[in-house]
Amino acid sequence: SRSIDLAVIPGDGIGQEVVTQGLKVLNAVLPQDVKLETKEYDLGAQRWHRTGETLPDAELEALKGHDAILLGAIGDPSVPSGVLERGLLLKLRFAFDHFINLRPSKLFPNTATPLAGRPEIDFVVVREGTEGPYTGNGGSLRTGTEHEVATEVSVNTAYGVERVVRDAFARAAARPRKKLTLVHKNNVLVYAGHLWKNTFDKVAAEYPEVSTDYLHVDAATIFFVTQPERFDVIVTDNLFGDILTDLAAAVTGGIGLAASGNINPTGAFPSMFEPVHGTAPDIAGQGKADPTATILSVALLLRHLGYEAEAARIEEAVSADLAERDGKQARTTDEIGDALAVRVAS
Amino acid sequence: SRSIDLAVIPGDGIGQEVVTQGLKVLNAVLPQDVKLETKEYDLGAQRWHRTGETLPDAELEALKGHDAILLGAIGDPSVPSGVLERGLLLKLRFAFDHFINLRPSKLFPNTATPLAGRPEIDFVVVREGTEGPYTGNGGSLRTGTEHEVATEVSVNTAYGVERVVRDAFARAAARPRKKLTLVHKNNVLVYAGHLWKNTFDKVAAEYPEVSTDYLHVDAATIFFVTQPERFDVIVTDNLFGDILTDLAAAVTGGIGLAASGNINPTGAFPSMFEPVHGTAPDIAGQGKADPTATILSVALLLRHLGYEAEAARIEEAVSADLAERDGKQARTTDEIGDALAVRVAS
Ligand SMILES: CC(C)[C@H](C(=O)O)[C@@H](O)C(=O)O
Ligand SMILES: CC(C)[C@H](C(=O)O)[C@@H](O)C(=O)O
Repeated sequence: SRSIDLAVIPGDGIGQEVVTQGLKVLNAVLPQDVKLETKEYDLGAQRWHRTGETLPDAELEALKGHDAILLGAIGDPSVPSGVLERGLLLKLRFAFDHFINLRPSKLFPNTATPLAGRPEIDFVVVREGTEGPYTGNGGSLRTGTEHEVATEVSVNTAYGVERVVRDAFARAAARPRKKLTLVHKNNVLVYAGHLWKNTFDKVAAEYPEVSTDYLHVDAATIFFVTQPERFDVIVTDNLFGDILTDLAAAVTGGIGLAASGNINPTGAFPSMFEPVHGTAPDIAGQGKADPTATILSVALLLRHLGYEAEAARIEEAVSADLAERDGKQARTTDEIGDALAVRVAS
Repeated sequence: SRSIDLAVIPGDGIGQEVVTQGLKVLNAVLPQDVKLETKEYDLGAQRWHRTGETLPDAELEALKGHDAILLGAIGDPSVPSGVLERGLLLKLRFAFDHFINLRPSKLFPNTATPLAGRPEIDFVVVREGTEGPYTGNGGSLRTGTEHEVATEVSVNTAYGVERVVRDAFARAAARPRKKLTLVHKNNVLVYAGHLWKNTFDKVAAEYPEVSTDYLHVDAATIFFVTQPERFDVIVTDNLFGDILTDLAAAVTGGIGLAASGNINPTGAFPSMFEPVHGTAPDIAGQGKADPTATILSVALLLRHLGYEAEAARIEEAVSADLAERDGKQARTTDEIGDALAVRVAS
């Protein structure tokens, strides 16, 4: 009989609330014969305040043993900026070699896009997850003095770029429109840019059926708001992907709906699924958070583990739910989770 | 009697066309007693194809002698990406220590913003112009092999950050809303981020009348499309400023209207004014380019040289022209320049 052994990291702020709904829907959608086991990990701001730990080795080791990880959100204003991001969230992405940071963007019915004319939006950003300016490879000299020099090094390897570019081409080839756009800034960041562009062109030769395009990151932001329908699959580096996917979330109705997967396609380590949004401390604990992004992240998790039908059922449920939401009163976190759980179960 | 000694670099693509209109309006707005001298510099793609030169020392030296520089646009698909950007445009910005890259964003009447509801937009981005990931401080090891490593180093100094932050506070203090937002990514780029944030907080203490705010760059893109009215002055690094100002241009009706100044406020070197848009080779030479961004850049140039009344006259002319444009047929580059020249002269 089948089973899923899931690690759950609720994290901070609204993390706990949205994860509860994600698990509710996961339980509802799974066939009877699939045994779901979950283990919760107490990581995040409270743990750090209590013990000074962000992600101890023992827990990192234990997390390795699971089939996948569901994460709510990490971060709190009471913790110095960077401590939990670098010490927990990014540490997991790097330790488990999550080189595919998958972020689909879709404009669902009845969602309040800030864009006039409601363009068709249905693209996916394949963000590199283990290199670029995110490596923590920087430093500061004469810190705090008027002679301080602070550096941040973007590290890009042929190995790291090629594997994410290949993944993006494969994804593009499997989609109806078969279009892949590389986003970088190769007119300024010429070394990293040339590596990305050359790798992209090399792999493109193996995918004649995929039409390709290149955009500088600044120009890409323009098209995100003026012509988002032009995008199908986008591949880009860690930092550009971070920026573009928040913008993508905004134009598709807000980060309440944006799901993501930190994926290691080799299976060497568990992949991790999380909403794109943050911890929203201002609304935490009030039942106001929209759990849809987490529930859609559960769909990505299921797809990654081979439960394609169940993943699709969740996505259809969200789509149908939003289609009927029009004009209705705002619902609580719990009510949205309940509604989606009922839909996927039936 | 007063005089302006202006260097003009039309550059490539639509650069020549838009610069012609900029000069037309400049001539029309200047009082009779101001003597305007212009000298054109043949720099850009054609020059590079002809001679292999991007910006020879002699010309860099000669440019130093002018009061200011008006630049059209630089770049052409026939030139490898980065050659003209790094060898000419960025070389000028760095050689002349243009540490303030000033980019106002305003939603003028009747311009086609992609945002529903036409929010009030009137902010200015103070982008650092001489540091960050733009320093060209990178390299590539084992280039072209499967073991290539390409790096890009973002360099940030206390000296460089403080001067741009001070300039931004002074600008914010002089505006009615007196609000300054720092944009960075200090939860990931912790070394550069802390230098920026600490400097910002230090200078903020000297400006108690300015209200301050911090946003991560990814979150800032969300607010650009959902709540652009929240911004007054934004200060940010070279790369984030590049990305955000293209997005700002898009939400305020397109890069046909976005002006910029590469400013050295000390006066040690000439400042340089240019539209944010590129060379648009697809429409070059067809009279289709909108010269308004260049004309608004001329306004920034005049303000920088102390001609505040004339600068304001250009901005008012653009505003009035756009207000009356509604429903009218598209005009040629020349017609727009003519219309604005007539308005500023009267
Ligand atoms: C919290 C932060 C470190 C993270 C990132 O920058 O990757 C977040 O913005 C995201 O997009 O998942
Ligand atoms: C052409 C390019 C080098 C330039 C930049 O990145 O600064 C442009 O995008 C701009 O914003 O002026």
